[in-house]
Amino acid sequence: MTVHLKDIAAYTGVSIKTVSNVVNGNYEHVGPETRVLVLDAIKKMNYKPNNAARHLRKAQVSVLAYAFPDLTNPYFADIGNAIAVEGARLNYTVLLDYTFSERDKELNILAGMSPHLIDGLILDSHALEVEDIRQIESGGPIVLLGERLFGAPFDHVLIDNTAAAYSATRHLIEVGKRKIAVIGAQKARSEAPSLRLQGFMQALSEANMPLDSSLLMDGGLWHRADGAAAMQELLKRKRADWPDAIFCFNDLMALGAISVLGAAGLRIPEDIAVIGIDDIEDGRYANPALSTIEPDKKEIARIAVQMLIERIKGQRTHTPESIYVPFHLHARASTLGRQAEKS
Amino acid sequence: MTVHLKDIAAYTGVSIKTVSNVVNGNYEHVGPETRVLVLDAIKKMNYKPNNAARHLRKAQVSVLAYAFPDLTNPYFADIGNAIAVEGARLNYTVLLDYTFSERDKELNILAGMSPHLIDGLILDSHALEVEDIRQIESGGPIVLLGERLFGAPFDHVLIDNTAAAYSATRHLIEVGKRKIAVIGAQKARSEAPSLRLQGFMQALSEANMPLDSSLLMDGGLWHRADGAAAMQELLKRKRADWPDAIFCFNDLMALGAISVLGAAGLRIPEDIAVIGIDDIEDGRYANPALSTIEPDKKEIARIAVQMLIERIKGQRTHTPESIYVPFHLHARASTLGRQAEKS
Repeated sequence: MTVHLKDIAAYTGVSIKTVSNVVNGNYEHVGPETRVLVLDAIKKMNYKPNNAARHLRKAQVSVLAYAFPDLTNPYFADIGNAIAVEGARLNYTVLLDYTFSERDKELNILAGMSPHLIDGLILDSHALEVEDIRQIESGGPIVLLGERLFGAPFDHVLIDNTAAAYSATRHLIEVGKRKIAVIGAQKARSEAPSLRLQGFMQALSEANMPLDSSLLMDGGLWHRADGAAAMQELLKRKRADWPDAIFCFNDLMALGAISVLGAAGLRIPEDIAVIGIDDIEDGRYANPALSTIEPDKKEIARIAVQMLIERIKGQRTHTPESIYVPFHLHARASTLGRQAEKS
Repeated sequence: MTVHLKDIAAYTGVSIKTVSNVVNGNYEHVGPETRVLVLDAIKKMNYKPNNAARHLRKAQVSVLAYAFPDLTNPYFADIGNAIAVEGARLNYTVLLDYTFSERDKELNILAGMSPHLIDGLILDSHALEVEDIRQIESGGPIVLLGERLFGAPFDHVLIDNTAAAYSATRHLIEVGKRKIAVIGAQKARSEAPSLRLQGFMQALSEANMPLDSSLLMDGGLWHRADGAAAMQELLKRKRADWPDAIFCFNDLMALGAISVLGAAGLRIPEDIAVIGIDDIEDGRYANPALSTIEPDKKEIARIAVQMLIERIKGQRTHTPESIYVPFHLHARASTLGRQAEKS
């Protein structure tokens, strides 16, 4: 026995339009008593909305989730923080769910996006393929972050990684460095390394500097330990073969590299300069302070939350878009020297 | 019209005992078909369990939440990580919810602990009082972490903060330091500062060292910036009044202090040694590596998840307990000098 909007209208004595407004979370023209009356009836009569499902969910929970791969990387904590602040501003609770970069965990989050739990998902996927997401009978809208799943049928917020890497490399060349190593250059499930490598090579080529592939180092999982290991590897070579600068494809690896340089008694940036990407707080307080590229994290969060809520409310119905947000270069002591910290 | 277990038994044709098993999530002796039959009937008949509520929830969602105050402090990310791993091992999804240390946000999380959302909560509260929690018609069991809400009627997992601070101070004295400043000593809503101060004073007193209250510095929100500000404050004094060691009541403040010492060209630990508490990864890769006290975070997570699930399943019914887990001193280069890093 299927319950329809008209049954709820008959039962409560309000108009079908009003019931529909409540089901769709449009409370502007519905008084609080009517709202409670209708919600009670929906519950009592076990009304199951069909394609209106996501609107009912909105009425029910006002909860978003942010699923991200790695809780130990402060970059994702910064993004989560910004999403939670933006969500709170718009009266949504934001739950954080992290996936260990594992395919099963990411699939579970998609499958678990049930009407009772969350209204929509901001997903920084590190394991799923486009087909996985298509096949899941998803419970609500999704906005993607990060350098994967290009071409998936979802809104996507990201930065121009090639331009960002170009900008970091260009800065190292401008401070006089001529032999630049990269840490994190390996092929990966994410497109980030290859996009960043393109920007790196573009800057070298513009400066007529040859690409030395022996200076392109693997960065493992992009953790501090991986940056430290790659740096140690480089320092094992003959001193004449050492680079004079390291471009790490994230700040965590750069912090690992700095710790190895410090322990070896080398001067940063005089002997070897270091630059990262992400602008996590750890880098701002590193010793010396880490130069980096800052993706505009607040803007990423603001746009992602806004697009997601618009999808949830049915206010955004057109073809998914990819939105590129700005990034900024922060030149600090790890490339400019200590005098930079006094300024 | 209230629906009772016997009504569901009559409707489905299974025994009351079996219905009860399903309601309580005890599926060992219930075949999958019977389980589905009973769960369908529970839904169709709109059965509302009373004090058995939390057991039904268990059957429904298998979701725990960890609510913590500060996403930008990696200590909480480490704990969240360990809780998520432990939860996953026991087939629970762990949602993370953070509270900005705000009372309203913490109240919301308690109030929002509804049957459909989560089964139980691990709460590191930084704002609620015992009375707040008592007054909330909580949806499920709670386990507390951290140095607040002593005497609340919940299981509680923590470390002996006085002993931990004693151990850190003792280490500074053993490496020859005689003028030890504290950062983070202010009165706070948490008991952590006063408990740690007790341990600090105990170690001084044992070594016949006087307490110099001008060396007890405020630590604000215990972030890197607060540690940096307090360190700058100390360095503004006459050089003769400088401390020869800094005990920061968490690692973040210690990293802030190290960045200021580094920028000022001072040698760590020769001029001023630094030690923290928490053992976050940032400290292990600091320049120099940060000595610290490590609360056994895996053990905290393991015990908290275990106690919570036992409460959810009704396997744990006795009076709430406070469980103290071990801590460990890690002496690194920020107190032992660079040669420590070679070992």
